[in-house]
Amino acid sequence: MAKTMAVNAGSSSLKFQLLEMPAEQVIAKGQIERIGLKDSIVTIKYGDGQKFETIEDIDNHEIGINKLLQSLLDLHIITDFNEITGVGHRVVAGGEWFNQSVVVTENVLEKIDRLAEYAPLHNPANAMGIRVFQKLLPNAISVAVFDTAFHQTMPKENYLYSLPYQYYTRYGARKYGAHGTSHRYVAERAAVMLDKPLTDLKLITLHLGAGASITAIKDGKSFDTSMGFTPLAGITMATRSGDVDPSLIYYIQEHEKLSNAEMLKILNGKSGLLGISSISSDMRDLLDVIDTNDHAKLAIDIFVNRVVKYIGQYVAEMGGIDAIVFTAGIGENSVPLRKMIIDKLGYFGIKLDEKQNEKRGSEIEISTSDSAVKALMIPTNEELMIARDVETLKNK
Amino acid sequence: MAKTMAVNAGSSSLKFQLLEMPAEQVIAKGQIERIGLKDSIVTIKYGDGQKFETIEDIDNHEIGINKLLQSLLDLHIITDFNEITGVGHRVVAGGEWFNQSVVVTENVLEKIDRLAEYAPLHNPANAMGIRVFQKLLPNAISVAVFDTAFHQTMPKENYLYSLPYQYYTRYGARKYGAHGTSHRYVAERAAVMLDKPLTDLKLITLHLGAGASITAIKDGKSFDTSMGFTPLAGITMATRSGDVDPSLIYYIQEHEKLSNAEMLKILNGKSGLLGISSISSDMRDLLDVIDTNDHAKLAIDIFVNRVVKYIGQYVAEMGGIDAIVFTAGIGENSVPLRKMIIDKLGYFGIKLDEKQNEKRGSEIEISTSDSAVKALMIPTNEELMIARDVETLKNK
Repeated sequence: MAKTMAVNAGSSSLKFQLLEMPAEQVIAKGQIERIGLKDSIVTIKYGDGQKFETIEDIDNHEIGINKLLQSLLDLHIITDFNEITGVGHRVVAGGEWFNQSVVVTENVLEKIDRLAEYAPLHNPANAMGIRVFQKLLPNAISVAVFDTAFHQTMPKENYLYSLPYQYYTRYGARKYGAHGTSHRYVAERAAVMLDKPLTDLKLITLHLGAGASITAIKDGKSFDTSMGFTPLAGITMATRSGDVDPSLIYYIQEHEKLSNAEMLKILNGKSGLLGISSISSDMRDLLDVIDTNDHAKLAIDIFVNRVVKYIGQYVAEMGGIDAIVFTAGIGENSVPLRKMIIDKLGYFGIKLDEKQNEKRGSEIEISTSDSAVKALMIPTNEELMIARDVETLKNK
Repeated sequence: MAKTMAVNAGSSSLKFQLLEMPAEQVIAKGQIERIGLKDSIVTIKYGDGQKFETIEDIDNHEIGINKLLQSLLDLHIITDFNEITGVGHRVVAGGEWFNQSVVVTENVLEKIDRLAEYAPLHNPANAMGIRVFQKLLPNAISVAVFDTAFHQTMPKENYLYSLPYQYYTRYGARKYGAHGTSHRYVAERAAVMLDKPLTDLKLITLHLGAGASITAIKDGKSFDTSMGFTPLAGITMATRSGDVDPSLIYYIQEHEKLSNAEMLKILNGKSGLLGISSISSDMRDLLDVIDTNDHAKLAIDIFVNRVVKYIGQYVAEMGGIDAIVFTAGIGENSVPLRKMIIDKLGYFGIKLDEKQNEKRGSEIEISTSDSAVKALMIPTNEELMIARDVETLKNK
């Protein structure tokens, strides 16, 4: 049967899933870590809980991907490279050029390269992954799936900043958002769970992981999202600040004698839950000590406050709300966090079912049956969404 | 009868009102403009529509204030300096030191000087005004009324940014807000209009002028506000950007080769309605051409969008809403703007009474009688609030 590979290539790592399509069955998944460093690791999980791991120096992506494909053969996961008929690649920045997934052509690749300006750490690695797979699997269709594409439907008054307009025309200075594939996936699943057409729903999807973003989805389209020109904006994250008064940032820079690049590193890497708590960027660590450590409690309170405020924003902006959807690391796994958030949303008619909220794993409705607005927990699955996009484009 | 002067001293101008207290009657008001420049102007309006104006070089605040007081005598508005028994001064930054108005002592003045760090354009001028009045009216009580004081009741999770915590302890890096005297005044009036104790109400007060801020008022206290460490943050303003992804600002700086100081000037002076529309910073100009100019319309749409989003945030954060209150230039005078905003708030149970909305001048309930949440228009009166605080402290 035809197999599709969903790929997320980073600068020194690469994650993949191999799915049987259209059956949507994951037959292998894994990663290559420490590409370009000593003791690189290739891990493949497959079959009935089996795991393959090898440690050797992998100098570049081509060697790594070759090793990965060869291992799939050796492990009899595939019998021929040609079984992989499609490869879908996560690409972080799609700018205003891409409002949906596309088959990768030379022209598309060139645009992805040019968009590296917006995602200097990610797009070049994404493009490299695409090029290597194109070389090693020349017969497979190659598809780019953009993190930003889903948000291209936002109305202009929602995506434009209140800056001099020429910055938009000159530099594309606007809100692009991120996590689009995840928001799109859980929105589609929510419609199924609610048994209503997605186009009839007003949803707020909460992708709460180390990076976190909140999206307002109206008529099946992204209407607004909390991340901005970059993933720094929006709510409090593991180590990112989210929204801050820009004047304050300059003020801090002046007093701490920090360059813009240094400050940006602090805003991205030393702020958020880590910055407030001074303990950990991991919500689980903070929850563990919430009763004994004031700073951990404060970090959690601020996180909840920002989530609640964004939900309120989007209810107002959409003029209503049918359901909120929790997904990603914290959203899927943190029972207490979901409770803290929902407990503050009683005014909007959301009532938590505490028993349901304590279930784990699969898709769960965590609001009570008489809750006017539903709350859902839906594990995200960006790889499946990527594979589906490959499938759609393959059959076009 | 005892008279109180409410003073707003700027670096090159000074506005005042003279009120008879406790009657709360304005007996004169006016300003000194172009202090330190050629052809300075002193204007005093008094009596039954009478107006006094003189143009002469005024080298400094002391000469200007002396001229002003002397003119009050000459015009028979007062018969003796000692009639002015209190002077209340607007002070922009009160930091965490001042959560209410205070009688100015040497210690208070020193703190106002030190807080100039937070408001370098305003606090030094405010302090100068205080010193000159103290010298010229040594028998009058001198009171400082802080723009930030009302917001000192915000809970920590609302005022703290998601930045490394040491920036808060070292530099007081937090949200202070502004327009506190105005938000406090209209909240008190709203309670009277709604005939309920202020402490039982959840209000959202919209101070929409060239500078604009929105405040959530719960239990009679400021619970959250849209301006931040400085008045740059929050909603779109006449020339200020409001909230922006900090990464984007650095990105623009790099491409436009702008220093932090230059960028900050653009964010404060060339952004907002002016920046988006490229036409005008004045909402009236934009409304005039809304049907023919796309950029004017876009600027208005963005302004309305941000106001609606902040209202949603605060409804969520307070867990409810009893009334929204419009005040300041745009809020008091722009019939179409109020309509555009309220038309988007139907979900919260706010219904506009179009006829009421077209009335001008005094305090008006602009929602329908069956509107679940009320909408009010209340002209702000910071001078009266200042005079009242002087009166309160005088009688302590």
